[in-house]
Formats: sequence, structure tokens, C-alpha cells
Amino acid sequence: MASEQLQPLVLTPEGRQQLVAVYRDGLLRDTLPFWINHCVDREYGGFTFALDRDGTVVDTDKGMWTQGRFTWLLGTLYSEVEPRAEWLELARHGIDFIRRYGFDSDGRMFFQVTREGRPVRKRRYIFTETFGVAALAAYARATGDDQARQEAVDLFKLIARYLTTPGLIPPKFNTNVRPMKSLAIPMILIVTAQILRQASDDPICDEWIERSIEEIERDFMKAEYEAVLETVGPNGEFIDHFDGRMLNPGHSIEAAWFIMQEAQHRDNDPQLLKLGTTILDWMWKRGWDEEYGGILYYRDVKGLPVQEYWQDMKFWWPHNEAIIATLMAYQLTGDEKYARWHQMVHDWSYAHFPDPEYGEWFGYLHRDGRLSVPLKGNLWKGPFHLPRMQLRCWQILEQMTEEGEA
Amino acid sequence: MASEQLQPLVLTPEGRQQLVAVYRDGLLRDTLPFWINHCVDREYGGFTFALDRDGTVVDTDKGMWTQGRFTWLLGTLYSEVEPRAEWLELARHGIDFIRRYGFDSDGRMFFQVTREGRPVRKRRYIFTETFGVAALAAYARATGDDQARQEAVDLFKLIARYLTTPGLIPPKFNTNVRPMKSLAIPMILIVTAQILRQASDDPICDEWIERSIEEIERDFMKAEYEAVLETVGPNGEFIDHFDGRMLNPGHSIEAAWFIMQEAQHRDNDPQLLKLGTTILDWMWKRGWDEEYGGILYYRDVKGLPVQEYWQDMKFWWPHNEAIIATLMAYQLTGDEKYARWHQMVHDWSYAHFPDPEYGEWFGYLHRDGRLSVPLKGNLWKGPFHLPRMQLRCWQILEQMTEEGEA
Repeated sequence: MASEQLQPLVLTPEGRQQLVAVYRDGLLRDTLPFWINHCVDREYGGFTFALDRDGTVVDTDKGMWTQGRFTWLLGTLYSEVEPRAEWLELARHGIDFIRRYGFDSDGRMFFQVTREGRPVRKRRYIFTETFGVAALAAYARATGDDQARQEAVDLFKLIARYLTTPGLIPPKFNTNVRPMKSLAIPMILIVTAQILRQASDDPICDEWIERSIEEIERDFMKAEYEAVLETVGPNGEFIDHFDGRMLNPGHSIEAAWFIMQEAQHRDNDPQLLKLGTTILDWMWKRGWDEEYGGILYYRDVKGLPVQEYWQDMKFWWPHNEAIIATLMAYQLTGDEKYARWHQMVHDWSYAHFPDPEYGEWFGYLHRDGRLSVPLKGNLWKGPFHLPRMQLRCWQILEQMTEEGEA
Repeated sequence: MASEQLQPLVLTPEGRQQLVAVYRDGLLRDTLPFWINHCVDREYGGFTFALDRDGTVVDTDKGMWTQGRFTWLLGTLYSEVEPRAEWLELARHGIDFIRRYGFDSDGRMFFQVTREGRPVRKRRYIFTETFGVAALAAYARATGDDQARQEAVDLFKLIARYLTTPGLIPPKFNTNVRPMKSLAIPMILIVTAQILRQASDDPICDEWIERSIEEIERDFMKAEYEAVLETVGPNGEFIDHFDGRMLNPGHSIEAAWFIMQEAQHRDNDPQLLKLGTTILDWMWKRGWDEEYGGILYYRDVKGLPVQEYWQDMKFWWPHNEAIIATLMAYQLTGDEKYARWHQMVHDWSYAHFPDPEYGEWFGYLHRDGRLSVPLKGNLWKGPFHLPRMQLRCWQILEQMTEEGEA
């Protein structure tokens, strides 16, 4: 394959400078201005993320996932890039809306509210709450606001209580014949606790990072298939049905870099690093599309047909996550295989996702790279995966340069 | 367009004979043998419909929608085509499984059970129950079994009670801020009541057909858009958000032929016929893909981007429904426009959906006709839309021949 012969940019100082420019300038000059110019609702508060490709609002509903995620991003930029007043003001704008309209009387969060903040939908699961924690924690870190810090810790503890108290979250399928659990839970808890740990020294953070990584290794990683499953039984049982066989390579590659990030946090812990790169190795093989390039959305662990009819689409976020994971794996291991993979997924992504006319990235392509839906945002897509990738990759490359100079 | 110049087969007696052969032989020599050879579970009862393209079972779970639908088909073939012992035996095989494992203690039905019949999933809405009514009614009609007839009527009355008693069906979104109702309900009630009426003279059938057609006309048809909406407020309010703007042309074209069928039942009632053809006219325009041919899955009524990322896929069933609706519209109006549309959708479908190697149809194609998922069956796809189309079109063509000879 031609892509095996390319010289990855990350291998040379000049190449790394080129990449830094792509990520940093993409973040500061394209992604952030696109959203800040179009999504801020000065009348009712919060953000309207359902934008057409040119930034026109096509639906005024406000998704709480994305309210939380953008607020996390803004607080994090303030803490980690520079203390820009604009970013802090917008983070406060987000926190205000989340505090005012994000919560139900039971302490749980709503999933979707109207422009004015009236609740449209509340969901069974606790994902919205994890993005609430991320927002509050990043805001507390940026401002030193103790109230926000406490709110973040309390909300994390509410999540933990719901996850550990049988019956609090109703079963998805209304019967108890086939209990299942999902990779999404331990995975999101790792990164949520990592974010909370930047704002709080509550021991619950390390505790949940540890138990979540253990759960992924013990119950979701299957050496016999060299794969990470999305759905297993309560004790990691393999469920030989559509749901149990389904792989989501982009999702587990995202988990891989959360674990590598934890390895880095623990002075490059070799066992954790090995765990993260093993997931990346297995799932790259499952996800990379040898025919068209890019990361396929779903695969079946036994190679059988997947039930989801749109299974071979290319979404923006698995590409963002694979770009981070491969670059981080190269940074932490020095294995040039990861530099090559990074270049492959970087090149495919930048050839297909950016909107040349209005900026930012499209989200939803067909397998061959044809555009399906031109929306820049909806209840799930907003300023999160793309700018997080741009920020993390910029930071990784800066770290590599510093390490090279040290 | 080239397709405007073709001479539709249905316009000549020879062409109609050709078409009869396609539909009848497709039903009797391809669709039915494919399913009967692969889906009958002689060990645990019922049918396993999750088949790979060659008929291999890839998931042993049993969907109750498809159990009910195939049982309806078998009973109907026995009553309307010929009294084949094999069809009756299989209908009884389906009824036995549905009676034994299909129902919860509250009289509601399960959506999905294991191979052995243990319940995996029960859903909020009453669609499974409508296919249960269809199965029981068709079985009662084929056998004269009074118990099945009574069960069908009772189950229909349970559905009616759930739909008319506030609070019995919990709201989809857990809040009451934006109440919505769906075209799927009145639409499925028309055809379910039409099926039940063939087995029972209970006045509830005509009553629900009448009120459902009225509801579609009053609340879902919007002359200002020349479109039938999928989701509206309780009194037909237009909801200017993704959900409220979304059109499903195949779905409303299916509703169109249910209404035309009712027109035919009422001695070609001109008002009902006009209603059905108006829906067909509006939604053909929305659904027909001028670029690649075929029926697009979702459109936005205002031409904005649709939220569903796989919105431009081509599914088998909207094509089955459009083939029936256009042929029926031609039969009942004589307008050659419908003969041309029928030929267009017939030609595109037969060029893309049939599996040349193992028979039956693929279900899930990309916009350009490329195959996405090779499954022949799953919880939703089974022996229903395709064989119903083959049966109905064969019958329509026979009626036209008889009328031509009369």
C-alpha cells in the first residue's frame, strides 16, 4: 500500500512543526471562530449547536451533552492555552445555562431542552451527567470557583450512586432475561474522573479510574478475538447475538487513549501503556478500511453482517479519536508503526471531512467519503471531538519537541 | 429523463402478463422457498428470521413483529391464493409460538424473545400488538378458528384502549413540554383493522379505519407544504424542529395505498381515492431520487438537512410500498402517470435489490445502489413487505385483466 511508504510528518522536527500548525491554527482560526460566531445564544443563554454547514441555526433545541462539552472545552482552553477573557466569559455563559436549565428535581440532568430551557427529553442513562461534571470541573479549574468544584464532585457521586445501586437505572429492554453492560460506561468514567481530578483531589477520581480500567481489561477485552467488545454480560460474558458481536473501533480507540493518558499521568506506567496500545493495535485492524481508507463505524467480531444498516459510514469523531490515539501511542512508545497510522488517518480525515467553503468539519460521510448530511452540529455533534483533537495533538507535539530539546 | 419515455408494461395485456409472472413467480418460486427453507425452527417453534444472504441463521433471537407478519402472510396465502396444507401448517406453527411466548401477563406483547421464547425486550409502543392482531385474524380467516378470531378482536381492543387512555403509554421523552404524535399509529391501525375486518364483523374495525383516515387527513397532511408529516403535535401542530420537519416518503406512500384500498372496498369512493392519490402525488415528488433513482428514506419538509445521518439510503420496503401504491393508483384511476411511476420504481428496484446468487432481496442499499448490509432478515426485515408486494401486485394485475375482459 502506498500509505505504508509515506514518510510520516511526525518523524522529523520540520514535519512536527507543520502538524502543529495544522492542529493549532485549525483550532484557533477555524473551529473556535466557527462555533463562537454562530452558536452563542445571547437572548436565552446557552448555545444552539444545530447548525447548517454555513452556521445557520436549523433547530433551536439545546442538547445538554453539547452544552457541557463546549463549556468543558472553553474552561480547558482558558487553563491550558491562555487566559483569554472571551473563553472564560463563554464558559460562564455555558455554566449559567446548565445550572439554570440542566437539572431535574432529582438531581439528574435533562438530555434536550428548548431554546428557552424547558425540558424536552430526559434519558435513562447517565451520559449527560458526565458531561455536566466535565463542564463544572473545567470551569472550577479555570476560575477557582469552589461552588462549581463541589457541584462537579457531587454530580460525579450521583453518577456513581446510580451505577452502583441496582434498580436505580431501569434496564434497557424491560426484562431481565439477557442483562448486558456497555463499554461506554467505564470508558466515559475514566475521562470524566481524569477531568474532575484536575479540579478536585477527591479520592473518588482515582478510585473510579482504577476500577473502570480494570473492568475494561477484565470484561470487555477478549484476547481470543483480539477485540474489545461494546456489549457484554454483567461478568464479561460473550453474547453471541448482533449486539454482543458488534464492535465500534472508533469508540474503543478512544478508550485506548484515555488509558494511555492515564499511563502518562502515572510516569508512563508500562502496564497501562501496554493495555492502551493493545486496544489500539486490535481495533485499528478491525476499523481501518483497507478499501477506501478511514475508520469504519461498526464491525462484527466474527465477521458476520452487522445489524446496523449504516454500519460502513465514516463519522468525524472516530477519526478525531484515532488521530489522537495514534499520535499519543507514537509519543509514548516511539514505535514508528504508530507514526505511520497517524499519518494515514490524518491524511484521510483532512482529505474528506473539512468543509472547504465554510470551515469546520462535516460529520457524516458515506464509506467512500461522499457527504451524507452537511450539518455542522446537532444533539451529538458540536465543538468537542474536533477541537479536543486539535488541542490534544498540538499539546502532544509540543511535549515531543520539549522532550527532544531536553 | 429516459424513464419518462419508457412504455410502461402495465399499459398492454402482454406487459401485464409479463409483470404477473415477475410477481407471482417471485413470490411462489423465490421469496417463499427462501424463507420456508431457512427460517422454520422445528426444535423450539416459531421462526428465526436473522438470516445471512445465503439463509444461514446469524442470530437466533425471534422478533415478534416478524413472527406475526409471516403468520399473517401464510394465513392470507391460504385464503387468497390456494389452500395449501404447507401454508396452513406453518401458519399454525407461527400462531402456536405467538400464543405461547408472545404475551406478557398484562396482555401486551414482547418485541423480542430468545430462540426458546424467553422475553428479551418489551417496547413502549403497540406495534408488536398490531402484527399480533394481523396474525391471529389471518389465521382465524384461514381456519374458521373462533378462538383466534376472538383473540384478534380482544387484542385490537387492548390496542385501542392503550391509545385512548391517557397515561397508559408513557411519553417517549419523559417530559410533557413538547407532546407529539406519529403518523405510524393511524396508518398501522387502518391496515390492521382492514385485516381484522376480513375475519370479524366487529364494528370496531370500520370505526378505527374511519377515525384513522380522518386523523391523517386532518392532522398529518399539510397542503401548504404538499407533504404528509411523520410527527405533529396532538392537534396536528407543525413542530419546526428536526423531528417535526422530517418526511418519510416510503412510509406515507404505504399509507396512501391503505387508503386507496379502503376506497376500493367502498366501491371506489372518489373522495378516499383522491385522498390516497394526493398523498402519493405529494410524496412521490419528495421521495423519488432524481439523481440516482429509487426512493430516498428521509427528507426535510423545508429542504433543510435531515438529522439522521443515513437519510439518503435506499431500503427495500419503501420500494415495495411504492410499487404497490403506483400500480393500485393506475388500476383505480387509469392515469398513465401512475403506470410510468410504477415502471420507474419497479425497474430501479429489480435492478438493485434482488440477490442474484441466493434469491430474495437485499434490504439495505446506499443511495447509489451499493450494498450496505447483506442480511436477508433481522428484527424488522422478514417475509413481509416483499411477499406482500408480490401478492398484492399479482392480485391487482389479475383484477385488471378480469375488468378488461368484462
